[in-house]
Amino acid sequence: MAFPKKKLRGLVAATLTPMTENGEINFPVIGQYVDYLVKEQGVKNIFVNGTTGEGLSLSVSERRQVAAEWVTQGRNKLDQVVIHVGALSLKESQELAQHAAEIGADGIAVIAPFFFKSQSKVRAEELLGGIQEKIPTFQGLKFSDTDLLDFGQCVDQNHQRQFALLFGVDEQLLSGLIMGATGAVGSTYNYLGKKTNQMLEAFEQKDFTSALNYQVTLSYPHLPAQSSYTEKPCFGVSQTKAIMTLVSGIPMGPPRLPLQKATQEFTAKAEAKLKSLDFLPFPGIKGGNLGACS
Amino acid sequence: MAFPKKKLRGLVAATLTPMTENGEINFPVIGQYVDYLVKEQGVKNIFVNGTTGEGLSLSVSERRQVAAEWVTQGRNKLDQVVIHVGALSLKESQELAQHAAEIGADGIAVIAPFFFKSQSKVRAEELLGGIQEKIPTFQGLKFSDTDLLDFGQCVDQNHQRQFALLFGVDEQLLSGLIMGATGAVGSTYNYLGKKTNQMLEAFEQKDFTSALNYQVTLSYPHLPAQSSYTEKPCFGVSQTKAIMTLVSGIPMGPPRLPLQKATQEFTAKAEAKLKSLDFLPFPGIKGGNLGACS
Amino acid sequence: MAFPKKKLRGLVAATLTPMTENGEINFPVIGQYVDYLVKEQGVKNIFVNGTTGEGLSLSVSERRQVAAEWVTQGRNKLDQVVIHVGALSLKESQELAQHAAEIGADGIAVIAPFFFKSQSKVRAEELLGGIQEKIPTFQGLKFSDTDLLDFGQCVDQNHQRQFALLFGVDEQLLSGLIMGATGAVGSTYNYLGKKTNQMLEAFEQKDFTSALNYQVTLSYPHLPAQSSYTEKPCFGVSQTKAIMTLVSGIPMGPPRLPLQKATQEFTAKAEAKLKSLDFLPFPGIKGGNLGACS
Amino acid sequence: MAFPKKKLRGLVAATLTPMTENGEINFPVIGQYVDYLVKEQGVKNIFVNGTTGEGLSLSVSERRQVAAEWVTQGRNKLDQVVIHVGALSLKESQELAQHAAEIGADGIAVIAPFFFKSQSKVRAEELLGGIQEKIPTFQGLKFSDTDLLDFGQCVDQNHQRQFALLFGVDEQLLSGLIMGATGAVGSTYNYLGKKTNQMLEAFEQKDFTSALNYQVTLSYPHLPAQSSYTEKPCFGVSQTKAIMTLVSGIPMGPPRLPLQKATQEFTAKAEAKLKSLDFLPFPGIKGGNLGACS
Repeated sequence: MAFPKKKLRGLVAATLTPMTENGEINFPVIGQYVDYLVKEQGVKNIFVNGTTGEGLSLSVSERRQVAAEWVTQGRNKLDQVVIHVGALSLKESQELAQHAAEIGADGIAVIAPFFFKSQSKVRAEELLGGIQEKIPTFQGLKFSDTDLLDFGQCVDQNHQRQFALLFGVDEQLLSGLIMGATGAVGSTYNYLGKKTNQMLEAFEQKDFTSALNYQVTLSYPHLPAQSSYTEKPCFGVSQTKAIMTLVSGIPMGPPRLPLQKATQEFTAKAEAKLKSLDFLPFPGIKGGNLGACS
Repeated sequence: MAFPKKKLRGLVAATLTPMTENGEINFPVIGQYVDYLVKEQGVKNIFVNGTTGEGLSLSVSERRQVAAEWVTQGRNKLDQVVIHVGALSLKESQELAQHAAEIGADGIAVIAPFFFKSQSKVRAEELLGGIQEKIPTFQGLKFSDTDLLDFGQCVDQNHQRQFALLFGVDEQLLSGLIMGATGAVGSTYNYLGKKTNQMLEAFEQKDFTSALNYQVTLSYPHLPAQSSYTEKPCFGVSQTKAIMTLVSGIPMGPPRLPLQKATQEFTAKAEAKLKSLDFLPFPGIKGGNLGACS
Repeated sequence: MAFPKKKLRGLVAATLTPMTENGEINFPVIGQYVDYLVKEQGVKNIFVNGTTGEGLSLSVSERRQVAAEWVTQGRNKLDQVVIHVGALSLKESQELAQHAAEIGADGIAVIAPFFFKSQSKVRAEELLGGIQEKIPTFQGLKFSDTDLLDFGQCVDQNHQRQFALLFGVDEQLLSGLIMGATGAVGSTYNYLGKKTNQMLEAFEQKDFTSALNYQVTLSYPHLPAQSSYTEKPCFGVSQTKAIMTLVSGIPMGPPRLPLQKATQEFTAKAEAKLKSLDFLPFPGIKGGNLGACS
Repeated sequence: MAFPKKKLRGLVAATLTPMTENGEINFPVIGQYVDYLVKEQGVKNIFVNGTTGEGLSLSVSERRQVAAEWVTQGRNKLDQVVIHVGALSLKESQELAQHAAEIGADGIAVIAPFFFKSQSKVRAEELLGGIQEKIPTFQGLKFSDTDLLDFGQCVDQNHQRQFALLFGVDEQLLSGLIMGATGAVGSTYNYLGKKTNQMLEAFEQKDFTSALNYQVTLSYPHLPAQSSYTEKPCFGVSQTKAIMTLVSGIPMGPPRLPLQKATQEFTAKAEAKLKSLDFLPFPGIKGGNLGACS
């Protein structure tokens, strides 16, 4: 029931939870999704039931079923299946962690509580000191801030590289790498995994110019060229579902309320932009599953 | 199974969830709690499982049990028992609403989603237009912002006063009253209900001077005179539990993680201040249930 | 050279600085502006060179000239002319204060520094304790937050009502009054002074229903009925200049960069709304001075 | 009167404005300051009257004198003297720009208005498109956000590297470099210039490990090892003045109000930490100019 200790490296896709048009979980496509990640994107690690997976919009019982399905489908195909077990109720979180161990997940992750917040904050660096004594199965952390100072100090604490320090801001991964990230978790690796792996390789070979070119290209490739970032791009789980459906041909369905489907306008623009970049295979299927919304 | 339509008026106490020292729910004291509110504070409406009640830190099954206990204990004593059924998962929220109707609660309330947020906001005024067609059992809303402009326009929409417009910023209730509030929901009415009722009366009689005196006295009466509000008072559920235990003599216990018990320093200062004001009865019991924390 | 000690009561208009189409100060219309405030709006106190007056967009030398012109034109007509002398450079602020005293202004005001901020904050209540010993000419303060708790405690400190406690959130003045405000400073009193004085009177006579009706009507009367506050109304100095030009017939001109003129769309909607309310006299002049902008 | 077109590269120190104990500008030490930067820190570009230089706390006349002194003292010693001419009043800003050209400064800089803010924002990338047609003397921009996505796109726009893209977050310069920064502006280069130049060199030689070691060491070297970043380090102009005085032996004096001197506690801790790192020469002078404050 303990988690095995494999080292987590490279890209980790934060998976979406596929749904049917009426909002129920679309379990049958999860197997296809695994194959797509492995074969088309070269991504062999996943992070299930996180923000991208609408984990907190699922009931506890649904979270268990989704976790179990990914573990089952990923067997012998994926390297690591990490289950997010964070919940507002600590009790429920504990139950989910127990369940993840029972079904044979490779690891669990929790985000810090966000409704009631702890009054004594710690910075990531402090957290790393002595954590292995407290949590022997501790594997690493995901860092999703753009403030790289604290991240750099985590790296400094992590001399022997025993922990995974996963960077969580997809559009700035290159700067995370130079600061010492050992891998990355993100939603874009669902469909940009292959290209991002090429950036990782360029970085390994110290080819900065190529690496920077990849990074710039990979930043919101789906947004129309002229769109301004100052009109905060409406980009989140809904939009990721629309794009993943386009790119993979696997229907991701609508998000759950309170999220709303991406608009047809968004989807049309994103499709045009992605096609113009000519680095994504398009299977040509998208029957009806990308609807309008306000 | 439908909610009966009684009109909600006056003060509504947002109840705490009493816990034992080891963090389990202390069901046996809920009956006492009802009696205290009715007899000592003159408060006959309650709001259960909200923020003050740590509703989101309870498991779904605990929320049902807590709701049921308050309904049972409040029968023939309380006017209205409103159950908060908001949850991150809409499915769980629907189940809780169904359950509240089944056990005979007088109403339910939900807060707007706060993890994923709806992209199309509405202001309260817009919400009121035509809502009775959409939700025939709609009773009213709780307004917890200090921006009274929107509140004023709700009042304007509510000419015939068919809805309850409950004000949720305890320390500024007087300004809510002049803007047209029909009642108030708050955590301080657990122990300041009697005095606040006196302020309501002064306001009804257009005795502004008294009303203002009450309001100023009732604002953080538990804080030491010299404390500065600019050092944001560490005041929340933990502190409310400590004060309510002091004042009522009913042990509220510690909060659940990630919240931490109020410090002994806080409790000592609050007790001194409350005693100096001389308007709270002190039962004199407080054995061990107000511990230290960092 | 000391400021005389008259008591500041009632409404204080935060004046606009009229400009010509090419952005120079339009001194000749200031006399007309004084007459309009006194005769049409019943407002006899002004606050010059504040935010509404674009004080910080003027050069120091322009600020002196504007202050002098208002003092000259206001003689024997206005009760109090208060000059805002705040500046990022304390030296310049001191010079402006000295100048205000020399030209015979009735008072000065400063806002707290906002580029570099003081690290030791004080709340308004603390500020009032003993201030008369430190600043013998201290007259009062303007409170522009919607957090009325701190305001209420200022009132509490101010038993003998020796200070002016001016409320600065026009749309919520009624709630400020019940909390003990002795007057109000705002930009809307340039054109809503008369109606707001009627609300003050209703409040004095404890006619809450009328007072509340006035307050609701006076909140953004210039905004189209259906406009949503959630799309944060683009309302500031530019829009106030456009409305004041419409309502008073005195050309206020464009704001200075970085502000841009109100759009024609805004002005047209505001005019329609104001006319429909039928409580503003329209002189019918508005030749060209309300232009378009992006 | 036009600015000559030299290319700005490498480190740019944002200079402090030295003051006497009574808050007047200490002109006589500016020559020493220039020599210190050039000889001890290897820094030959400066940015005068910016935030670090308390430019907005100086009167307009003082800003001219300070600018002139730096230009005079830097002649034949410094590569580029850039004068910050931003002011709340556009008129004053224009006068300062004119003056900078007249005294022979190498360039000017302005920050975007921050009291009244423009309603139509642009992102940095958009700004670069076609700017040379509008402002022929445009040399580059300073980027001070940690959101490197927008910065990366500036770099992408700047293929021919005609502009200087200066990175402004000292503690994260390494990540700026890999994203394509051509130089850096910052306050720490006053005393960490030499070490930072060593990091630049390691980066040029693609020695990531050394570069990262430098970056981690250079991040707040003056803070005690155990200090937590979550208690937001009180670090600003006051603290920079204290450290620069310690390290250079040139008295920087106190900051102007509303800033307060760094506390003796801060200075003592910073000194101990800096000495323990053993990479800063200490001249041993610090008589009385580092006082206490609350």
